[in-house]
Amino acid sequence: MTYCVAMRLESGMVFLADSRTNAGVDHIATFRKMFTFVQPGQRAIVLMSAGNLATTQSVISLLRTRANSDLPNLMNCASLYDAAELVGRTVREVVTRDAGQEQTGVDFGCTFILGGQIQGEEMRLFHIYSEGNFIESTQDTPYFQIGELKYGKPIIDRVISFQSSVDQAIKCSLISMDSTIRSNLSVGLPLDLLSYERDAFNAGSRYDIDENHPGYKALREGWSQGLKGTFETLPEIVW
Amino acid sequence: MTYCVAMRLESGMVFLADSRTNAGVDHIATFRKMFTFVQPGQRAIVLMSAGNLATTQSVISLLRTRANSDLPNLMNCASLYDAAELVGRTVREVVTRDAGQEQTGVDFGCTFILGGQIQGEEMRLFHIYSEGNFIESTQDTPYFQIGELKYGKPIIDRVISFQSSVDQAIKCSLISMDSTIRSNLSVGLPLDLLSYERDAFNAGSRYDIDENHPGYKALREGWSQGLKGTFETLPEIVW
Repeated sequence: MTYCVAMRLESGMVFLADSRTNAGVDHIATFRKMFTFVQPGQRAIVLMSAGNLATTQSVISLLRTRANSDLPNLMNCASLYDAAELVGRTVREVVTRDAGQEQTGVDFGCTFILGGQIQGEEMRLFHIYSEGNFIESTQDTPYFQIGELKYGKPIIDRVISFQSSVDQAIKCSLISMDSTIRSNLSVGLPLDLLSYERDAFNAGSRYDIDENHPGYKALREGWSQGLKGTFETLPEIVW
Repeated sequence: MTYCVAMRLESGMVFLADSRTNAGVDHIATFRKMFTFVQPGQRAIVLMSAGNLATTQSVISLLRTRANSDLPNLMNCASLYDAAELVGRTVREVVTRDAGQEQTGVDFGCTFILGGQIQGEEMRLFHIYSEGNFIESTQDTPYFQIGELKYGKPIIDRVISFQSSVDQAIKCSLISMDSTIRSNLSVGLPLDLLSYERDAFNAGSRYDIDENHPGYKALREGWSQGLKGTFETLPEIVW
């Protein structure tokens, strides 16, 4: 499985992906799930994937190859909406090709989070489904998750709003990821973190985080101790 | 959907169930999911259910009717293991009857948590699957969850061990439930909470908790504020 989360805030965006892929417990491997398409000063697009690895790799390969062609692609599309539509179309193309006519019981599906900014537009964030259709984030719902999303959802619901800072969003994403990793073996380190400042039109700041990363370690320990402290000082329940 | 959690600790047991049932968003209703079979001084058995409501209601009805008969039943079985086997057999009986030969695509499945104590035995806790088979809690894994379990799992993994007190387990269960309710509409109040003291062989202490329950409210607010406080005082991440 996978866990990816992205937030679109007033002042910027944050993307976080784990890197564990599994087909049963016998086939656990590390594959990066975050991909960027950047033209400095013009566009910054980030894609994160979950689901069938063969499908998502094919989709990314086709998107990359075509980015150097004259076909409509992620480096020449006029808007993030067009980019989402293009990714959705590519998902349908690959699933149709691979799933074919056979009912093998294999799930060829996948989901993507697509976000970023193109000159002339505000930052935008999309959640693209297996069927190729998609929804867009709004101020009311400033984040999307794909993969093993439930474990890490409560903390986001509690602390993140459109007005949160990029710094807060980074911390919250990492805590959400840490909770997921502790409770679900199919999500694992290292992590890919990317933060993007509004109107920067660059590749943002990208961090590769493994278990020895001092900042991540301090954050996890601070959170864990804070939670335990909070738990121990809760009021006695009055029945 | 549903969320139920039970913990078996050194000093006692805690059971917590929500009460929301839904078949699509059009059919949301309140049904209790916690049932007790008690013979003071002799046995205390608690059952909680998740899954297809028609199946779980039938299973409970048959178990209750038979508890007054000479058939093997929950009021005369010699051990909790026998009780789990009996519930499993009843699940199979109902699913076989209702699912019949037809492939309607309806999921007739359900899961149960069964726990308690019978004279001559220690407290025991079982998780019974749709197929009627079951697993038993140990000191290493002192809790079971059924239904929408992922949202509320991280907090339990962080704070509960076999040595935790009943009081801590009550608080942790309620926090786990609160996190689930905030993130998932299919889990809802009121809640059924039951705590049982080791070797008490009684019906335990049972609480009916709705949104205005002052103790639950204070706990939720204390937790929410504590979390936010912890989050705001986290160390800056050193990159």
